[in-house]
Amino acid sequence: MSKLLIVGSVAFDAIETPFGKTDKILGGAGTYIGLSASYFNTSSAIVSVVGEDFPSEYIEMFQKKDIDTSAIEVVKGGKTFFWRGKYHNDLNSRDTLETQLNVLADFNPVVPDTYKDSEIVMLGNLHPLVQLSVLDQLTAKPKLAILDTMNFWMDNALEDLKKVIARVDVITINDEEARQLSGEYSLVRAARVIAEMGPKYIVIKKGEHGALLFHKEQVFFAPALPLEEVFDPTGAGDTFAGGFSGYLAKTEDVSFDNMKKAVIHGSNLASFCVEKFGTERIQNLDKVEVYQRLQQFRELTQFEIELA
Amino acid sequence: MSKLLIVGSVAFDAIETPFGKTDKILGGAGTYIGLSASYFNTSSAIVSVVGEDFPSEYIEMFQKKDIDTSAIEVVKGGKTFFWRGKYHNDLNSRDTLETQLNVLADFNPVVPDTYKDSEIVMLGNLHPLVQLSVLDQLTAKPKLAILDTMNFWMDNALEDLKKVIARVDVITINDEEARQLSGEYSLVRAARVIAEMGPKYIVIKKGEHGALLFHKEQVFFAPALPLEEVFDPTGAGDTFAGGFSGYLAKTEDVSFDNMKKAVIHGSNLASFCVEKFGTERIQNLDKVEVYQRLQQFRELTQFEIELA
Repeated sequence: MSKLLIVGSVAFDAIETPFGKTDKILGGAGTYIGLSASYFNTSSAIVSVVGEDFPSEYIEMFQKKDIDTSAIEVVKGGKTFFWRGKYHNDLNSRDTLETQLNVLADFNPVVPDTYKDSEIVMLGNLHPLVQLSVLDQLTAKPKLAILDTMNFWMDNALEDLKKVIARVDVITINDEEARQLSGEYSLVRAARVIAEMGPKYIVIKKGEHGALLFHKEQVFFAPALPLEEVFDPTGAGDTFAGGFSGYLAKTEDVSFDNMKKAVIHGSNLASFCVEKFGTERIQNLDKVEVYQRLQQFRELTQFEIELA
Repeated sequence: MSKLLIVGSVAFDAIETPFGKTDKILGGAGTYIGLSASYFNTSSAIVSVVGEDFPSEYIEMFQKKDIDTSAIEVVKGGKTFFWRGKYHNDLNSRDTLETQLNVLADFNPVVPDTYKDSEIVMLGNLHPLVQLSVLDQLTAKPKLAILDTMNFWMDNALEDLKKVIARVDVITINDEEARQLSGEYSLVRAARVIAEMGPKYIVIKKGEHGALLFHKEQVFFAPALPLEEVFDPTGAGDTFAGGFSGYLAKTEDVSFDNMKKAVIHGSNLASFCVEKFGTERIQNLDKVEVYQRLQQFRELTQFEIELA
C-alpha cells in the first residue's frame, strides 16, 4: 500500500440546486478527495487549512476514516474558506454567489515529515504556488504526481500553473479547460498539446459525458453512469480525483492498464457523490453498493465483438 | 441474411462548415442509411423519390453496392429535395439556409413486392405519415422495425409521429429530442417514458458524446471515437442507423446482446462519415480500416476490473 498525500481546500459550501438548498455544509476539494480515496483504505494525509470555526466533528470524521489530519492547520481566530453557489436548471453550469477566501488567503502548506516520501501525490485544485510548495517539500520524487486545476488559475496565474503542469505525471481537467489551456478545440489535439507541457497522462473530465484518459497514442474512455437524477454535482470532479488516486495508491501500479481501472473507480465513486447534497453520500458508502455499481459500469460498456 | 427495407430521402445537400463548403452533393437520410448498411452485404432496398435532375450515376453507384433501387421513384419534370445548411464553429449546431421539398412534398412510398416481407425495416427521418404508409404495406410483421425521427416532426406532426412510435420496436433519436418527446431531462427517465409509447429499445444519440441503448432496466453505452478532426457531421446519425440496421440484418439476431454490437458497428461507421464532406468517406470504405477502427473502439472502452 502506497502513501497518498493530498493537498486541497477543507471548507464550507452553501449550495442551491433546483432540488433544494443547504446552509453551510462541509466541502472543499481536499475533503472530497480525502473521503473518496479513503474508500480504498490506503494511508493518506490531507494538507490544508481551516479556521477556528471549523467543527472538530469533521476532523474526527476524517480520522475515523484513517485520514491523517495532522497537516490540517487550524488558524486561531481565523475563518474557514466559504463558497456559496447556485446551479442552473440543467445542473451543467452554476453561478458563484459568494466566495470568502478567509484563512486560505495566506495558506502555507506544510507536508508532514512522514508523508514527504509519499508515492502518490494528489494536488487538488488550489493556487499553483501552493501546489508547487507541496512538491518542493518532498524528499523523494513520487511515483506519481497528479494535478487537478481549473480555469480560474488559467485566467489568473497561468505562468505559475505551467510550472506545476511541467512537474506532474497526470493532469485532470475538464473539457472546456483543456480547450482553454491548449487552444485546441479537438480534445485529441488538446491532449497532445498538454502532454507537451509535461504530463504523460491527461485525464479530460466531461461531467455527465464521462472522462477520457490519454497517454501517448492510447486513449481510454469511461462513461458517467446514466443516472435517474443528479441532485448536486458539487465535488464530483474531486471525488473522481480521490477515487483515481486512492485506487492507484492501493494497487501500487501506475501502468496505463491500471490507470484505466483507476478511471473507472473514480467515475464509479463520482456517480454516488452527485446523488445527495455535499459529502453526504460519499461519507456513507458501503462496499456492496460500490461493488454493485462497478458491475453496472461493466454492463454499460463491455461488449463482445468479432473483429474478423 | 435478412432483407433490409429502408425508407428515407435521397437528396441534394449543400454544406458549409468551418473547413470549407460544397456545391450540391449527394445527401439524404435514405442515402446515408443505404450506403452504411451496404457495408454488411445484406439484401437491401431504398424506398424514396427523386426528380429528373437526379444523376443516374448516383443510382448506378447504389446498384454497384447491391442496393435495390427499383423503389426510388423518379418523377418526370420534378426536382430533387434540396437542403442547404451551415455549421457553426463547434460543429454541434447548424443553421438551415434553404430547404426545397420539391418531389418529397407529394411522396407516396411504394414498397416493392419482394421487400414486403422484410425482416428488418429501417424508417429513416421523413414525415411520419410516409413512415406509417410503409409499415401498412408490409405483408408480414417484421422481426424488427426501427424508427429514426427528429424534433421537426415533434413540433409539426406529433400525433402522427406517436402513431409510428407505437408500432416500432426501436426508436433512435438524439438527446435533445428524447427530452422534448418525453418531457424528462434525465435520459434514463426519458427512455422510460418513451418506452411506454411503444418501442422496446430506445437509442439516444449524443453526437460526439456517444450513444445510449436502453431496454427495460438494461443500459449500454457506446462512445463516439475521439477524433482529431470532425470535418462535416452531416449524415452521421443516418450512417449510425444504417450500420445498426445493416448489422442486425446481416446477423439475423435482434437480442439485446447483439444490439449492443449493432450500436458499436453503427458508431464505428459514423466515425468515418464525419471525416469528409457528405458521403465521400462512407462510399469508399475498405474492410481493413473498418476492422482497425473496431479494434480502436475495443481499446477505448474495454477494461478488466476485479469486482471483489
